[in-house]
Amino acid sequence: MKEKVRIAYIGLGRRGTGVLKECFLNTADVEITVLCDIVEKNMKAAADMLCEAGKPMPRLTTDYREAVGAEDVDAVVVMTSWESHFEIAMASMYAGKYTAIEVGIANDINECYKLIEAHEATGAPLMMLENICYGRRELAALRMVKEGLFGEIVHCGGAYHHYLNETVLFKKLPNGEDFYDRFRLSEYHSRCGELYPTHAFGPISKVLSLGRGNRMVSLTSHASCAKGLTTYIRDHVPESVPVHDMTFRLGDIVNTVITCAGGETILLTLDMTLPIPYRSRSFEVRGTKGCCIESNHDKATYFLEGMKEGVFDNEEEFFEKYEHPLHQEYRKNGAIGHHDGADYLVCRAFIEAVKAGTNTPIDAYDTVAWMAIGPLSEQSIAMGGAPVTFPDFTHGMWMTPSEPLKSKYSLDIICEDPDTPIVPQ
Amino acid sequence: MKEKVRIAYIGLGRRGTGVLKECFLNTADVEITVLCDIVEKNMKAAADMLCEAGKPMPRLTTDYREAVGAEDVDAVVVMTSWESHFEIAMASMYAGKYTAIEVGIANDINECYKLIEAHEATGAPLMMLENICYGRRELAALRMVKEGLFGEIVHCGGAYHHYLNETVLFKKLPNGEDFYDRFRLSEYHSRCGELYPTHAFGPISKVLSLGRGNRMVSLTSHASCAKGLTTYIRDHVPESVPVHDMTFRLGDIVNTVITCAGGETILLTLDMTLPIPYRSRSFEVRGTKGCCIESNHDKATYFLEGMKEGVFDNEEEFFEKYEHPLHQEYRKNGAIGHHDGADYLVCRAFIEAVKAGTNTPIDAYDTVAWMAIGPLSEQSIAMGGAPVTFPDFTHGMWMTPSEPLKSKYSLDIICEDPDTPIVPQ
Repeated sequence: MKEKVRIAYIGLGRRGTGVLKECFLNTADVEITVLCDIVEKNMKAAADMLCEAGKPMPRLTTDYREAVGAEDVDAVVVMTSWESHFEIAMASMYAGKYTAIEVGIANDINECYKLIEAHEATGAPLMMLENICYGRRELAALRMVKEGLFGEIVHCGGAYHHYLNETVLFKKLPNGEDFYDRFRLSEYHSRCGELYPTHAFGPISKVLSLGRGNRMVSLTSHASCAKGLTTYIRDHVPESVPVHDMTFRLGDIVNTVITCAGGETILLTLDMTLPIPYRSRSFEVRGTKGCCIESNHDKATYFLEGMKEGVFDNEEEFFEKYEHPLHQEYRKNGAIGHHDGADYLVCRAFIEAVKAGTNTPIDAYDTVAWMAIGPLSEQSIAMGGAPVTFPDFTHGMWMTPSEPLKSKYSLDIICEDPDTPIVPQ
Repeated sequence: MKEKVRIAYIGLGRRGTGVLKECFLNTADVEITVLCDIVEKNMKAAADMLCEAGKPMPRLTTDYREAVGAEDVDAVVVMTSWESHFEIAMASMYAGKYTAIEVGIANDINECYKLIEAHEATGAPLMMLENICYGRRELAALRMVKEGLFGEIVHCGGAYHHYLNETVLFKKLPNGEDFYDRFRLSEYHSRCGELYPTHAFGPISKVLSLGRGNRMVSLTSHASCAKGLTTYIRDHVPESVPVHDMTFRLGDIVNTVITCAGGETILLTLDMTLPIPYRSRSFEVRGTKGCCIESNHDKATYFLEGMKEGVFDNEEEFFEKYEHPLHQEYRKNGAIGHHDGADYLVCRAFIEAVKAGTNTPIDAYDTVAWMAIGPLSEQSIAMGGAPVTFPDFTHGMWMTPSEPLKSKYSLDIICEDPDTPIVPQ
């Protein structure tokens, strides 16, 4: 068991810096030995933050190859823009490092095969930091599923309802500058598919035991026309923002249906460019004996056979009985971070795996399968919604899975472990 | 303009008798000249009801051919079990009668072509009595769409969430007998597809101007495994009910995505056999400027660009401004029937068309396209979710539609007409 994990942290934009601060700064068992970003200003600001917190000054580099190759690095955290995750993760695994990547999809299905190849050639674990797997609602529902409360699970749903036009296109930064998110816009311009599946999909993958006795076998995807962003730009964005000539391939609403080996279906919806009154992941688990249905970001309705119909938003009642032990402990410690603690817990899960030298609770096969949804969805849409088969990246191992990770962070079993307190001293 | 419409009313089960009583009994401009059912007991009970209401005694027959062929019949109303609508509607149109059929799907796509052929050969109007087209929420949303409130419409959704296992399988009748719905069970046993699309789909069809400048071009459909009914029977249904050896092909959740000529997508969900806490049609209209999203049967949320996020269930506020004139008048008269008046209004729409000798507001092309969703969905599911093309039953007429029906019951335009009061004296 390592006492301290030495991390190369790559990607210090808004999200990278935020997660660094919240999840890696105040933990005695983490040392950031290398910081890396192509924008030097951001990198230096992050270094200042570390120093102000009394941490040793990390080395700084704009070259991710240098960062992942450093000898005083046990693990690499990749928080860069979507399209670069693959390249950096590959280099990191071939450098033999535990590798964590922020959520995202593959640019192409071949990248998925390459990532598996790198993982199998090097033994380096690869974990997507899919925070929502550690969401309070999602973990409680996972416990309910594991305890059989909903009977046999037949269908799941999830979505990313988040009206992001203003955020992506036109936001005044604190310094008064117009901001627009060129990374996202570039994807919206170029790709039509399920570009952001994993917040919805990660928890569902664990509910349906994908990779462990079940797997995705096929997928179809369907995009509406793309009118939301163009309309928004026309009506709201000043001429000074250089987006008025942009075209967008991404349909406003993308619906994807995945079919699993066990006959279960999964409906995913991507919804980012049309006005909507709420944010929601529309998390839905449907079984033969009951269900969990998210009403909106803050509320969900649980129903079991025999209960009175028409009772809504009864989540607290179910949390009282079925809170996942990880969240029980986390909340007992009074720690509630961004995204209701999910960011902290997913990073903690990664750090604990590195310390213990075990596999990660979201493993390379999970990560790669989740990243494959993007390009497979593009393929299906390109063929008018034709079904595409889902590769079995496990080479059949899903049928006879190995023992699940014995860790309180496991997403395959409910495993309490009082010996590793969540917030180390 | 006819003063009185003479109707042959076929199908006097629970639903048929209910609609007869609510929508055809207390109107001076309707005379039921023929009643028809294969179950004589039901037919006689309906005749008694008519006589008790002071109406002339209708002729009774168990032969629908005799009913549709009678000379003293202007219009035929078909309220029989799903699988018989086609056959009776064909006979009725070839007898030259205005024909109304209760909601349902075609048994096979060829039936759709045959219905169009019969309609075009005879000129006899064919109208599906899709009550939800006249729902209060759906009519108000239609008005909002026509007034441009939501901008350009990009995506619509609808569902039939109705946990029917108890109703279908095991219900004590007032006489103490076990009841089970052999018509529905026979469909569940034999067919896997979107078996009940029209409550969700009818209003969407009108929102998207299908048949009038737009049309459905393709469809994919996806069914989960079928476990809900079997589990329910095992755990709840007494051995005496002869269903324990039945198998069911119908997946518990069926998701269908339809793509339209204008690039709009439509998501339909069928959900009848798994526990769920509410009934809902999940009616959803998404545009570039706003949306309407049904929360559950009783509530919906409306949102327009610029409104405060996170306000829910604000339907009354929108009804105050955008109530459809038809519902304004109907409610002013104090008449609220079953399904919030929708049953009454859809029947009234049919009767008024017969009286005026005009086309029906849901016309033969609407009816047939809606009925086609069922078999096309079965085709797609049988091919693993492959897209199937949607026939153009209009032979291209959808591109240059004729003048819309000038009637207060029109679902294509908002048309007030004070000269035809809703409840005639």
